[in-house]
Amino acid sequence: MQSSFHFALAAGHGPARAGLLQTAHGAIQTPAFMPVGTQGTVKAMTADALRAAGAEIILANAYHLMLRPGAERIAALGGLHRFMDWPGPILTDSGGFQVLSLGGLRTISEEGVVFRSHIDGTRHSLTPEHAVRVQHLLDATVSMVLDECTAFPATPEAACRSMELSMRWAARSRAAYQPRPGYALFGIVQGSVYPDLRRKSAASLTTLGFDGYAIGGLAVGEGHARMLAILDATLPALPPGSPRYLMGVGTPLDILEAVCRGVDLFDCVIPTRAGRTARAFTSQGVFNLRNARFAADPRPLDPACACPACRRHSRAYLHHLFKSGEMLGAMLLTWHNLHYYQQLCRSLRAAIVAGQLPAHAAALRAGWRAVDPAAELGRQPQRGDVKDAP
Amino acid sequence: MQSSFHFALAAGHGPARAGLLQTAHGAIQTPAFMPVGTQGTVKAMTADALRAAGAEIILANAYHLMLRPGAERIAALGGLHRFMDWPGPILTDSGGFQVLSLGGLRTISEEGVVFRSHIDGTRHSLTPEHAVRVQHLLDATVSMVLDECTAFPATPEAACRSMELSMRWAARSRAAYQPRPGYALFGIVQGSVYPDLRRKSAASLTTLGFDGYAIGGLAVGEGHARMLAILDATLPALPPGSPRYLMGVGTPLDILEAVCRGVDLFDCVIPTRAGRTARAFTSQGVFNLRNARFAADPRPLDPACACPACRRHSRAYLHHLFKSGEMLGAMLLTWHNLHYYQQLCRSLRAAIVAGQLPAHAAALRAGWRAVDPAAELGRQPQRGDVKDAP
Repeated sequence: MQSSFHFALAAGHGPARAGLLQTAHGAIQTPAFMPVGTQGTVKAMTADALRAAGAEIILANAYHLMLRPGAERIAALGGLHRFMDWPGPILTDSGGFQVLSLGGLRTISEEGVVFRSHIDGTRHSLTPEHAVRVQHLLDATVSMVLDECTAFPATPEAACRSMELSMRWAARSRAAYQPRPGYALFGIVQGSVYPDLRRKSAASLTTLGFDGYAIGGLAVGEGHARMLAILDATLPALPPGSPRYLMGVGTPLDILEAVCRGVDLFDCVIPTRAGRTARAFTSQGVFNLRNARFAADPRPLDPACACPACRRHSRAYLHHLFKSGEMLGAMLLTWHNLHYYQQLCRSLRAAIVAGQLPAHAAALRAGWRAVDPAAELGRQPQRGDVKDAP
Repeated sequence: MQSSFHFALAAGHGPARAGLLQTAHGAIQTPAFMPVGTQGTVKAMTADALRAAGAEIILANAYHLMLRPGAERIAALGGLHRFMDWPGPILTDSGGFQVLSLGGLRTISEEGVVFRSHIDGTRHSLTPEHAVRVQHLLDATVSMVLDECTAFPATPEAACRSMELSMRWAARSRAAYQPRPGYALFGIVQGSVYPDLRRKSAASLTTLGFDGYAIGGLAVGEGHARMLAILDATLPALPPGSPRYLMGVGTPLDILEAVCRGVDLFDCVIPTRAGRTARAFTSQGVFNLRNARFAADPRPLDPACACPACRRHSRAYLHHLFKSGEMLGAMLLTWHNLHYYQQLCRSLRAAIVAGQLPAHAAALRAGWRAVDPAAELGRQPQRGDVKDAP
């Protein structure tokens, strides 16, 4: 596709890559984590705080924004960057995952999806062409094709039918997309947990040609080990010079393992959602700040962290804020978690560049003390789903 | 009282005063508004945001903090300034108003108040001596005497009995207080709506001698006009060289009128509470950002304002945040409202210094279009009451 959108690999270590993604709205060093701003705001964060936390690109959601306040309204107000005060790159999810998570409220056909709004029950339809148009109106730096995010578990037959529908929708999305310099459209690999389907999907998308390739339909209940196995089967089938985006993933451990396998981009609601529920990611694992053991603890949350929550406050203060139901608790812990995720990606990039990835990865895993943050959080990550709306 | 706490009048215009208050934790230009940080946090504001909004002193609440997390715990953690990351001056309300607003959960005697915690029902007592000790443990820059905030309406007899009890408690508070350089203890004038009682109360406190004088028991339902009449009766009875603090007041119009009468310090939950419920104070009056008329409005909330909500965003974005239930709406509007209150006080000070107070006051009133913000807000201001806790 014609585009001054450009991805360059700066270094590699085995399959792991350090890259630089150039866009119309600025550059992104990869591996990169995109904070999730579903409704045109990353929950509990000002745009200044997002920048200070180190974010270079954020994610917003076409489904939520087309329903409220409306894509045409955002276009009339100057686009999503101006609306949110985020002049940097924005990737928008197409809305397919959200629509499909509506369950009984939607029907899927070859043409697209007809659904009822989760806000007011009004009837809407979303086709590949409409999803691309919505994202154009939003002025998304990176648009995503409309896909059907295959439910888990799925039989091989159902997964194949679903993947093939997504491939036809990908072709229609690509045909409807209007290239603009510095903007991009990414395809999405589907195929559930079946390596052959994943490889077929990757080949279909590669033949169509996209600016980047996302891996969808993971982190939907298949578990960490199976997710990694699917990455092992899928990533070698993607063009090595294009950015790869693992949608809706994940915990720090998920990100570490995926980076080691060659993924460049991530998004997930985990750090923001955890921050609102008193959970903090640290170099020593996950802490729940509501725990009474922090009530009189004068130490910073994570002595290794330079975020305002860690530099300015004690664990005792953060504990007090959550026990008292004060918004500042969610604000500070969201900031911390996003800072932690950004720092994690920066450190992985530096280790790749320095040829030290295995040692760094081992040190990170040891710091987390083999605690599985997903288990601590009580659920597997979900790709910015409808339930993320308040 | 021995203290390097110092108040100097820089200029006056009629009874109105521009002053400079020196404390152990920094200087405060008066008239000054103190944002309310009941539970050791100004709701929805980081300490950095508070500083950026122009606050020079904040208020916290001894009642709430003694119950949770406990005054001894805050002392062990280095005091309230460090706990909150607010190195500037902090004034703490003694807790009398909060305890008395508990209604059936408390009994008052000459000794003090016995009450049950609104959090867990545990039994506590608060005496003048204990209230002073709690504030000392918190390391409050300015402590307040324990008073009985007389309910409204009160008969002259009941108001007199109540005021006299407060005066005996003021004497005991003063005796219990340990002076430290740069720290202060303020007395509180009571007497309901009866000018003679107010003058007697002012005389009692002046005889005892305090670092500053608060006017309590107002903004409890008596209405704007009667509040101003009580100020007219009370302020001339207070020592002209000491700071005067009108507790729990109020709307911008309340503050304007009280400054014109010689009040130096204010606190109120109105700007923060209004910010969380989509109401914004502006040079053109009060706006409710949930109103549909703002849905497509590209203009800044208040073109005259330099806060981030006004410089960075449209009314349409703020409307979207509140309609979507996003925390950022409360964060931005709280910031704006506090910025507006600080700017109001700065502009009143500048007008006093320039000898332009009447013209400035007239321009402010005209801008507000004779809209009574209290009516728009649906209630009269309350002095940081228990209901302010989430």
